[in-house]
Amino acid sequence: MAYYPEPIAKLIESYAKLPGIGQKTATRLAFYTIGMSDDDVNAFAANLLSAKRDLHFCSICGNLTDADPCNICTDDTRDRTTIFVVEESKDVLAMERIREYTGLYHVLHGTISPMNGVSPDDINVKTLITRLMDSEVAEIIIATNATSDGEATAMYLARMIKPAGIKVTRLARGLAVGSDIEYADEVTLSKAVENRQEI
Amino acid sequence: MAYYPEPIAKLIESYAKLPGIGQKTATRLAFYTIGMSDDDVNAFAANLLSAKRDLHFCSICGNLTDADPCNICTDDTRDRTTIFVVEESKDVLAMERIREYTGLYHVLHGTISPMNGVSPDDINVKTLITRLMDSEVAEIIIATNATSDGEATAMYLARMIKPAGIKVTRLARGLAVGSDIEYADEVTLSKAVENRQEI
Repeated sequence: MAYYPEPIAKLIESYAKLPGIGQKTATRLAFYTIGMSDDDVNAFAANLLSAKRDLHFCSICGNLTDADPCNICTDDTRDRTTIFVVEESKDVLAMERIREYTGLYHVLHGTISPMNGVSPDDINVKTLITRLMDSEVAEIIIATNATSDGEATAMYLARMIKPAGIKVTRLARGLAVGSDIEYADEVTLSKAVENRQEI
Repeated sequence: MAYYPEPIAKLIESYAKLPGIGQKTATRLAFYTIGMSDDDVNAFAANLLSAKRDLHFCSICGNLTDADPCNICTDDTRDRTTIFVVEESKDVLAMERIREYTGLYHVLHGTISPMNGVSPDDINVKTLITRLMDSEVAEIIIATNATSDGEATAMYLARMIKPAGIKVTRLARGLAVGSDIEYADEVTLSKAVENRQEI
């Protein structure tokens, strides 16, 4: 290992802890940091601390927020009859980006995964059940990922929620827009045929 | 743009200012940061501030250091008759990594570049001249990059230093170890022929 002055060696170490950033990139970023303006570096450090300190999970929906309840849960213009259930806060953001959905969300923070010892009690399911007591809710859209754990979680939630007389839906499976049939995997293709629509 | 809570939006902004990190990667890193331990995030912030605050350029050689003069300049075991002249502090580290050179360094912080309006006064040349007054110095190894600006800087320094009776050398040009003749560029190949060595 080359001799680095301690402040830069430590900064390289911190950068290298980030996902997808190896020793070389970390070194490049550390040297770049030294050349950044004081203001930018101070803001960067303050933003790191603030993100860790000021962000919490909304006590209603589990989404990441700096206010509790979050801005979506407290927004009176949103449709309170629908709850869109996702695995992670990032999924809420992805959904908000398309500006089509105006209902509420619920973030599970994971999926049920018997293989990895994750039971329904380990994810944010209890508060979802509490929310269903609210007679306004008419539909639960389950938008867990299209993975086996995501599917298992969707099945579990559907079986639990349906008896309460609430409509439960799941996002459509099919060919990604712009994709080639030639390269679609078999399961996706068969789902696309199964769910074909009249035009 | 999706709605992000302000603390995370600001952190994404800071990450996106780093070179080679776009909006998507910045978002991924910001979310990852929220999941990091408090200790790691606090250390990251402290290391950013420390790298900016505690690192300076050595008043003798111009290398990045947390002590002035730097550990290399003050190391009595190093050979004081040779100065290895590089463009950037990173080059010092690259050289130290091979653990073969035991002399001193001089960091120019750039190259002379008439095209970009960079004159010898804009880079760290004056202190190099001051160091040559030290009668101990017997050889200057010029290790600027093999670019046109690097070559021009090497030529300028050689012309200025040689009259003082100090030996000036330049790193060898030739085929990179492990490289194919087939893929070598023409200039490198002709340099390799010109500088061929008896075996």
